[in-house]
Amino acid sequence: MDTPSQKLLARMQELRDLGGAIGLCTWDQETYMPEGASEGRAAILGTLESLSHERLVAPEVGDWLEASLQDARLTPDQRRMSELLKEDRDRAVKLPSSLVREIAVEQSAAISAWRQARAEKDFQLFAPKLQRLLELRRAQADAWGHGGERYDALLERFERGMRVQRLTPVLEALKAQLVPLVRALAGREPLQGRPELLGGSRTYADGAQWQLTLDVLAAMGFDFRAGRQDRSIHPFTGGSHPQDVRLTTRLEASTPVPSFFGALHEGGHGLFEQGFAEGDFRTPLAASPSMGLHESQSLLWENQVGRGQAFWRHWFPRFQAAFPEALAGVSEASFHAEVNRVQPSFIRVEADEVTYNLHVVLRYELELLLLRDALPLSELPGAWDARMQQYLGITPPDPVKGVLQDIHWAWGEFGYFPTYTLGNLYAASLYAAAQRALPTLEQDIASGNLLGLRDYLRKNIHAPGYRLPAEERVRAVTGEGLTDRDFVAYLRGKYGALYGVSL
Amino acid sequence: MDTPSQKLLARMQELRDLGGAIGLCTWDQETYMPEGASEGRAAILGTLESLSHERLVAPEVGDWLEASLQDARLTPDQRRMSELLKEDRDRAVKLPSSLVREIAVEQSAAISAWRQARAEKDFQLFAPKLQRLLELRRAQADAWGHGGERYDALLERFERGMRVQRLTPVLEALKAQLVPLVRALAGREPLQGRPELLGGSRTYADGAQWQLTLDVLAAMGFDFRAGRQDRSIHPFTGGSHPQDVRLTTRLEASTPVPSFFGALHEGGHGLFEQGFAEGDFRTPLAASPSMGLHESQSLLWENQVGRGQAFWRHWFPRFQAAFPEALAGVSEASFHAEVNRVQPSFIRVEADEVTYNLHVVLRYELELLLLRDALPLSELPGAWDARMQQYLGITPPDPVKGVLQDIHWAWGEFGYFPTYTLGNLYAASLYAAAQRALPTLEQDIASGNLLGLRDYLRKNIHAPGYRLPAEERVRAVTGEGLTDRDFVAYLRGKYGALYGVSL
Repeated sequence: MDTPSQKLLARMQELRDLGGAIGLCTWDQETYMPEGASEGRAAILGTLESLSHERLVAPEVGDWLEASLQDARLTPDQRRMSELLKEDRDRAVKLPSSLVREIAVEQSAAISAWRQARAEKDFQLFAPKLQRLLELRRAQADAWGHGGERYDALLERFERGMRVQRLTPVLEALKAQLVPLVRALAGREPLQGRPELLGGSRTYADGAQWQLTLDVLAAMGFDFRAGRQDRSIHPFTGGSHPQDVRLTTRLEASTPVPSFFGALHEGGHGLFEQGFAEGDFRTPLAASPSMGLHESQSLLWENQVGRGQAFWRHWFPRFQAAFPEALAGVSEASFHAEVNRVQPSFIRVEADEVTYNLHVVLRYELELLLLRDALPLSELPGAWDARMQQYLGITPPDPVKGVLQDIHWAWGEFGYFPTYTLGNLYAASLYAAAQRALPTLEQDIASGNLLGLRDYLRKNIHAPGYRLPAEERVRAVTGEGLTDRDFVAYLRGKYGALYGVSL
Repeated sequence: MDTPSQKLLARMQELRDLGGAIGLCTWDQETYMPEGASEGRAAILGTLESLSHERLVAPEVGDWLEASLQDARLTPDQRRMSELLKEDRDRAVKLPSSLVREIAVEQSAAISAWRQARAEKDFQLFAPKLQRLLELRRAQADAWGHGGERYDALLERFERGMRVQRLTPVLEALKAQLVPLVRALAGREPLQGRPELLGGSRTYADGAQWQLTLDVLAAMGFDFRAGRQDRSIHPFTGGSHPQDVRLTTRLEASTPVPSFFGALHEGGHGLFEQGFAEGDFRTPLAASPSMGLHESQSLLWENQVGRGQAFWRHWFPRFQAAFPEALAGVSEASFHAEVNRVQPSFIRVEADEVTYNLHVVLRYELELLLLRDALPLSELPGAWDARMQQYLGITPPDPVKGVLQDIHWAWGEFGYFPTYTLGNLYAASLYAAAQRALPTLEQDIASGNLLGLRDYLRKNIHAPGYRLPAEERVRAVTGEGLTDRDFVAYLRGKYGALYGVSL
């Protein structure tokens, strides 16, 4: 007979396989699925998700977990897997299925209202639905339980162990340093700037853009035997298994930035997914301990590597060869300056590295107030605009460029935004640690060799998977947990040089 | 509370959704999956299949079925759905899971041995594995139950209701007519033949071939909003839902026949899948009642339509425009003659319409002997070669061109081959019925209009789905069940004209 631990392992594998099927169905939905198939696909995904839920909360799983966790002979990995599954299961069990269904129904309604509100540039068309979702998320937080701060319960889904009490002072300190940095750079030109290069009338051929994305993914060590890249409207990383990792990108004719930096970004996620230890496949250990740590890998490759000076030493000649007309007579320094241009702007997903985290802090502060019921929705657009003015010195002309821009709240997702900034902070700290550990890192990057960095990250971040919580994992690598020090130092050094100012 | 029938419906939908996920995972495996992902994919498919089995045989389903089938208020459709599910479930329940596992294990071993035997052209390397699979299939047939003929129990999986007693005389009579037909044509040239056109040194550009497959699928009324075509090594029709039907094709540089007739063939399957009634989606009614009837749809489009004279009236000018060099100075009649060339040959999947069914009859006769334990495996290659000589007048030079050519037996699939001939016979009868019902059919086809035929098949075959067994469905349309009359008359008329002989 199988032991409880063996039965648990089989169930973990089954849950992972269901997750893999969901991953493939979702990837297909965004890449190759015919448009008329959306209803059928929604039914399939609904069935897979509800089966997955049912197999997780099944009473026998509770029994196996209890028996397993009392077993003194468990290896540390076995214990960790059981604990992780138990945490997932406890949360799932606590959530009444009526609440799950109601959230799903209200999400659909809210998405429709959000689209309508955007079309008419009128936040009030969306407000009642957002109100309802907020009430449901508060109920969800209460069902999961918390120590008085509902936001903590929502954060827990994305950043296990993170708390408002830990996060707020970090984001406050970051904001206090970023606002003056933005002021110092806003309105200035980079020393080597040539604004006509990107996003203007120059054209960058599709085929050459596509080839460069494949080239840079190969250079990063992304394994095309265990993954692939396709096109989609909104780039993402998905797939069904660590040996089946699917990246997507999108091409714009007037600039190779979305495709190329998109490939670096999704490739960073993809390396995490491909980097889990083979013995951990189909178990809870083959996972990132947090969304923030996952995002740190995409951002590290996109920004610390891809927007760095050394990187373009190798890649700019390749860009010039790929786009001989658009980049004729352009210097490496100008191209590097343009992919790092700082410009306060309304839309988060288009923001540069310096302003980006202020968009996040703004959302975090507002979400916290909303979850605490300390900000009436009627005042939300005003609160948004006031903070935009305060942090970035600009005021959105309409709510589509302001409070209505993200889909997250229309999905009723609160607590996700901070993971982007956690990703930025972890990325900077991990990159600084890599520089200390790999003395030739910048020369290697300048000569096109990215594999040393890939191996460093694989060993220190990817292969350990979910053995430690995110912050402990970072501490084990860098000697320090969550900090803004490395990120702010990185910005000051880089943008001081690019803009010729002392920051 | 839900009634038993409502609970049953929900379970039927769930099973269909699981089948849809399996369909997508399988399609992806043959089209876009990276090569390193096969182990992970096998695990996912295994989990989905075993969950599907578990949800079908679950005791509550038996209770719901019993209660539902006693309910006098059931509509005929509800009753039919319950009966169909009950038949599937009864068969699944009867099969010991140890036998299912053993078959899976022996299939893998047999596939390996079959590849090895092919590499060394030595049937004896495969024989012991085939022996084991035969024993297991006999055990499976006994577990399912039968009236003394084990083959009936295996046939039942593909052709519910079909029996050896019904099938044998039909195939005997067919054989008796085909053997002289083949003799009369073998070694002759079609009147307008030009053998250098196809499969020789002329080249047919990839892009033009691909476009023609899309054009003909569109002309057939295949809905690209509810399906798509991709490339794969072995063409097939799959997908996840009637609004998500995936066709594949393959391109050969020296002949457009595999791609174009492949598209007609898979498109015929695809129209069946897209043609189910919307109210039947995600129920057992949205299915073909048999593999033979499904095959009748692919063969009708490939052969009765696509290899017909009228068809090339419209399509040959398009082929000439697409392949101006390869088809320069070629007449429509010559092209039509070449896509209908008759030539006894060793390999079933490359056989023409006249010889094809003799390949099938040969396999059927041998399978029947093997299942009855009336032919020692040591004598199988000899029995194969003797029949080839008797039916087609040729003897395979080695077992790879003979008894080792198909993967079916290596998979342990017995009872599948006859569905190909059932498809041929049904196709001819259904096409003859369509000609009677649509007096302008040949003119329509000659002018490129295929939608009248599509609509006729949709109304009479596709939309009714699984409401009637296959032969009853055919009888409802043609006035007669399974018969070789229409097929043989079709061959005599067509090939008599093409070869200028009286058949």
